[in-house]
Amino acid sequence: MKLNKLLLAAAATVALPSLGFAQEAEVPAAVPTDVVWILNSLLFLIGGFLVFWMAAGFAMLEAGLVRGKNVAMQLTKNIALFSLAAIFYYLIGYNLMYPLGDWAIEGVFSNLFPAVGVLEAVGVGADAVDDYSYASTGSDYFFQLMFCAATASIVSGTVAERIKLWPFLIFVVVLTGFIYPLTASWTWGGGFVGEAGFSDFAGSTIVHSVGGWAALTGAIILGPRLGKYKDGKTVPMPGSNLALATLGTFILWLGWFGFNGGSQLAMGSIGDMADISRIFSNTNAAAAGGAVAALILTQVLYKKPDLTMVLNGALAGLVSITAEPLTPSLGAATLIGAVGGVIVVFAVPMLDKLKIDDVVGAIPVHLIAGIWGTIAVVFTNGDASLGAQLYGIVVIGLATIVMSTIVWFILKVTMGIRVSEEDEITGLDMAELGMEAYPEFSKG
Amino acid sequence: MKLNKLLLAAAATVALPSLGFAQEAEVPAAVPTDVVWILNSLLFLIGGFLVFWMAAGFAMLEAGLVRGKNVAMQLTKNIALFSLAAIFYYLIGYNLMYPLGDWAIEGVFSNLFPAVGVLEAVGVGADAVDDYSYASTGSDYFFQLMFCAATASIVSGTVAERIKLWPFLIFVVVLTGFIYPLTASWTWGGGFVGEAGFSDFAGSTIVHSVGGWAALTGAIILGPRLGKYKDGKTVPMPGSNLALATLGTFILWLGWFGFNGGSQLAMGSIGDMADISRIFSNTNAAAAGGAVAALILTQVLYKKPDLTMVLNGALAGLVSITAEPLTPSLGAATLIGAVGGVIVVFAVPMLDKLKIDDVVGAIPVHLIAGIWGTIAVVFTNGDASLGAQLYGIVVIGLATIVMSTIVWFILKVTMGIRVSEEDEITGLDMAELGMEAYPEFSKG
Amino acid sequence: MKLNKLLLAAAATVALPSLGFAQEAEVPAAVPTDVVWILNSLLFLIGGFLVFWMAAGFAMLEAGLVRGKNVAMQLTKNIALFSLAAIFYYLIGYNLMYPLGDWAIEGVFSNLFPAVGVLEAVGVGADAVDDYSYASTGSDYFFQLMFCAATASIVSGTVAERIKLWPFLIFVVVLTGFIYPLTASWTWGGGFVGEAGFSDFAGSTIVHSVGGWAALTGAIILGPRLGKYKDGKTVPMPGSNLALATLGTFILWLGWFGFNGGSQLAMGSIGDMADISRIFSNTNAAAAGGAVAALILTQVLYKKPDLTMVLNGALAGLVSITAEPLTPSLGAATLIGAVGGVIVVFAVPMLDKLKIDDVVGAIPVHLIAGIWGTIAVVFTNGDASLGAQLYGIVVIGLATIVMSTIVWFILKVTMGIRVSEEDEITGLDMAELGMEAYPEFSKG
Repeated sequence: MKLNKLLLAAAATVALPSLGFAQEAEVPAAVPTDVVWILNSLLFLIGGFLVFWMAAGFAMLEAGLVRGKNVAMQLTKNIALFSLAAIFYYLIGYNLMYPLGDWAIEGVFSNLFPAVGVLEAVGVGADAVDDYSYASTGSDYFFQLMFCAATASIVSGTVAERIKLWPFLIFVVVLTGFIYPLTASWTWGGGFVGEAGFSDFAGSTIVHSVGGWAALTGAIILGPRLGKYKDGKTVPMPGSNLALATLGTFILWLGWFGFNGGSQLAMGSIGDMADISRIFSNTNAAAAGGAVAALILTQVLYKKPDLTMVLNGALAGLVSITAEPLTPSLGAATLIGAVGGVIVVFAVPMLDKLKIDDVVGAIPVHLIAGIWGTIAVVFTNGDASLGAQLYGIVVIGLATIVMSTIVWFILKVTMGIRVSEEDEITGLDMAELGMEAYPEFSKG
Repeated sequence: MKLNKLLLAAAATVALPSLGFAQEAEVPAAVPTDVVWILNSLLFLIGGFLVFWMAAGFAMLEAGLVRGKNVAMQLTKNIALFSLAAIFYYLIGYNLMYPLGDWAIEGVFSNLFPAVGVLEAVGVGADAVDDYSYASTGSDYFFQLMFCAATASIVSGTVAERIKLWPFLIFVVVLTGFIYPLTASWTWGGGFVGEAGFSDFAGSTIVHSVGGWAALTGAIILGPRLGKYKDGKTVPMPGSNLALATLGTFILWLGWFGFNGGSQLAMGSIGDMADISRIFSNTNAAAAGGAVAALILTQVLYKKPDLTMVLNGALAGLVSITAEPLTPSLGAATLIGAVGGVIVVFAVPMLDKLKIDDVVGAIPVHLIAGIWGTIAVVFTNGDASLGAQLYGIVVIGLATIVMSTIVWFILKVTMGIRVSEEDEITGLDMAELGMEAYPEFSKG
Repeated sequence: MKLNKLLLAAAATVALPSLGFAQEAEVPAAVPTDVVWILNSLLFLIGGFLVFWMAAGFAMLEAGLVRGKNVAMQLTKNIALFSLAAIFYYLIGYNLMYPLGDWAIEGVFSNLFPAVGVLEAVGVGADAVDDYSYASTGSDYFFQLMFCAATASIVSGTVAERIKLWPFLIFVVVLTGFIYPLTASWTWGGGFVGEAGFSDFAGSTIVHSVGGWAALTGAIILGPRLGKYKDGKTVPMPGSNLALATLGTFILWLGWFGFNGGSQLAMGSIGDMADISRIFSNTNAAAAGGAVAALILTQVLYKKPDLTMVLNGALAGLVSITAEPLTPSLGAATLIGAVGGVIVVFAVPMLDKLKIDDVVGAIPVHLIAGIWGTIAVVFTNGDASLGAQLYGIVVIGLATIVMSTIVWFILKVTMGIRVSEEDEITGLDMAELGMEAYPEFSKG
């Protein structure tokens, strides 16, 4: 920042034609089409690695919010779910979500098994450029995969501390291979929900609520942790490491710039770049709004601010802005996020009253704030209609509830989804893994 | 790295005209103006998310260096201060720092309240392109906000373990909404300090020393922690989690590439890109120099290397190079950083002798190394004068001291800034938040 | 993701010529040469900061896998080794690896001492553009430095918990200033191994195996930790913080996108960008394959999944794909990574049988999976020959073994490399640093 910006801008205007040793008399304005293609792909790669980083954020958040005896298991679940998502989104999900031909229900099955698909067929280098005229297939795949994996990360926090490892991982396989790709294709794959006018920019409903519904059905079918609800009271089971949980929140916040910004899907024009910039700023504003709302509200309600509520408030702000991070002003984005923060503070105890045990608060953050964010689109985006938004929320929600419930039940009946009481009391780390996350730190 | 680089470079020269299916006989050299605009904005976004990440770095560093009983509070302060900075830099700070019209003291007030400003007025997409001819307003806002928030992060570490939450957060609001934007505008907003020839590339003085002065006045007005200075001796109060502190240092180091590199403010020409590359390399070299200097010096002085000194040495190296990361050679950058590391090793015990209790060492790192770095500009940048550098250090320093002192005093008189002795002994986590960061790890 | 992608692609094709307020009737396709230069440099900077981040990953992984009494020392070693690598790769290594003139054995010595080199000579801005016609020298230096430092990070984990700080750091100086640059130059600097047809895209052998061989010789010469092998049995010494180890693994995974993707060395054409995209996707697939393979295999072999094996499995998958992340299909990349995961599960106990004490499992992950990955190149890259691959593995391996052994022995004879038994039992943190990483968490 060696120059004041206004001066620099003025200088740039003057200097531009002579920069770069230009041979032309006049520097053109237009972005060459190959540069458009490169920039679009670069957006997917940067966006993709930022959303990848959210997998680490979920892992740290959840490891910090479970009790010490379940930390190693929660970490195992998180790295395993991401890895399985990568494999099954490749094997099945990607082609199911974006079939090569026209999208149709019939297409689902024809695309399921010859799923080697486009990424196998293409060559290396410029030969790899085929179907997609605007970005590399590999970059798009990389970006989309990370969204699919995020859906599964949402589930693992809610059902923590009592679900068996393998049934959980089988659920992840179905969720990332089938349920998410199918429901996401209804909007992003050119399906009927999108055609009905449903607008969900980066996935408040399509990613976060789908993860949230899958988590909710799992939590209900699993039942609460032993001792969580006693004599009509909720027994607090504080997280073992709030530093880790805060780190996880910051990681998720960072990753969300890629989640929302990358969903512009194009960076090769000044209009797209202006939009991405607004999205970054609005995404940040909404997180800040959610955190501050939860901070103030817990101070007012309980006389003591609650760090975990502030963390979840920031995350709820992020989920809330995800359905429309572009059209709001910064002020509106802050307010949309703040409502997300308020939702968390009220929804967490409400779930406890319903005896739905959501270990990390993922249902308020991802499901309820996701619904709020999807509805809030209509306040700032003139092209969206409340009817279409509700239609999308209901259709995608119902489909996810039905499919998730069926899978959870089949798992429950066939192999059981819950660890034994003894194992739950011992903790999953020693019972299922035979190791401890913090073997040297004695328990208080 | 499939080819050796020299061969590849040669090949590139030959191959370039035929790459990209060029239709032209000759590939032009000049960067189209729309591409310049996109690349400048992209620099702000990448730089911005890296500097955002520094908020996580400060949080981890500080949470690792406070005692276990104050960790949850330190985390709360860090996420809250960032969120409040985002809101108040938006409401007031940004327009105060970069007024739309000509900068003037009168402009301060006229810009304060119609602060909805440029980001509210602009439309979506290409319509959003207006005042700034060289980058998107949203990307610039995003980048600048992160610098403002960093200033507040510096303060929180110094005043940790004894300041009340809410007065601290009110100070943050004033710092990020008024003090930093005002003093920063004197150089970066086209103000009188910049016009006097003061040179501070990415903010050794404008960001780090301002944070450092605000921290110093706070530390003096607050007083030291109970029991820190007893019978003329300094009682060590070791940080509770050095792994976390190290993580925070690495995060800050990473973020600093965006902090200094992004401050080039342009990436749309080969000259700008060559400069950014030098800045990245020099920034890294200075951090390495600071770390190694502190490592060797603590070995020599105390016969035992001190990890916290090494961490702060690396950070001091980074602060030292921030005023001029471009003109030094790699060797000079390493030495400039090394002096920063030496400063830390001597300044930390010196502050203790003065009974100024700086919990994490932020005053040596950000204030003293910041002054050093600002002076060091004259060694490598021929355009800088020692007079102008000292003028900037003094003017910005005095202004920050006066304003910070007034705010701290008003807060002290009206609501009190220090927790009760009992609460301090209990720890802020249980006393103010009613929770613990590590509830299961019993205290040694 | 406001539009379905196929529609958007179609729209883009139509809209492109009118984007960016183009004054021309037709938008050109070709990437202007200045833009090529900028994009190539940008790839090095993004790749470079991602690989920098791996230094934090190694630090967290290793700090999590050592016992609590050695954590502060492990952190000190990691930040110090990175800083020393930065200084000695600058002073000696870079010019040794990429001499300005033609590469030759004679060139080694002529380039050693006037090592101020190209980065000192060049000016600021466009003047800095000289030798390299395809990217900025500073960006290349920044990227290459990070690879050098990674080599040293690999060693520190293996020899943890018993090596003295200063001899270890002297080894790091030799490794990063001489051994790595010399052996790397044989392929990447235009040397005889590369000319023999050896193919190692991003360094399975050149980086990872070199680090692994240096670690192996160190482990053998140092001997195992006290009490590790007793009465023919291996005594488990579990890591103190598996959350930290998992965080480190995720950091490494993220950084690897820069490690492999950046090694494409060019981003200024659609062909290069298509390749980078494939590399990102394949790198991710291999990590997932390694993690899942280790998860399933430990379940089958031991009836309990092992988190540390899963973490090392993911890392082994990453190492395995590093020699050829471009030509495999996603399926092949997953399988290549999976074999890496299998290698880890079998090699860890095998090393223990040989009484080679590798504290974090770096030898299986970096050396053995590195050899596997280098051989696996021949399965997907038609230009590679098994003979040339084996030649490279053997030549580089032998050279590293010989040079490392000499250095370790000289250090052993002159200053000793191992702490006293008493210090080892006390733990290096208190014995060598006089501090603890977690002073308040009592030991179980």
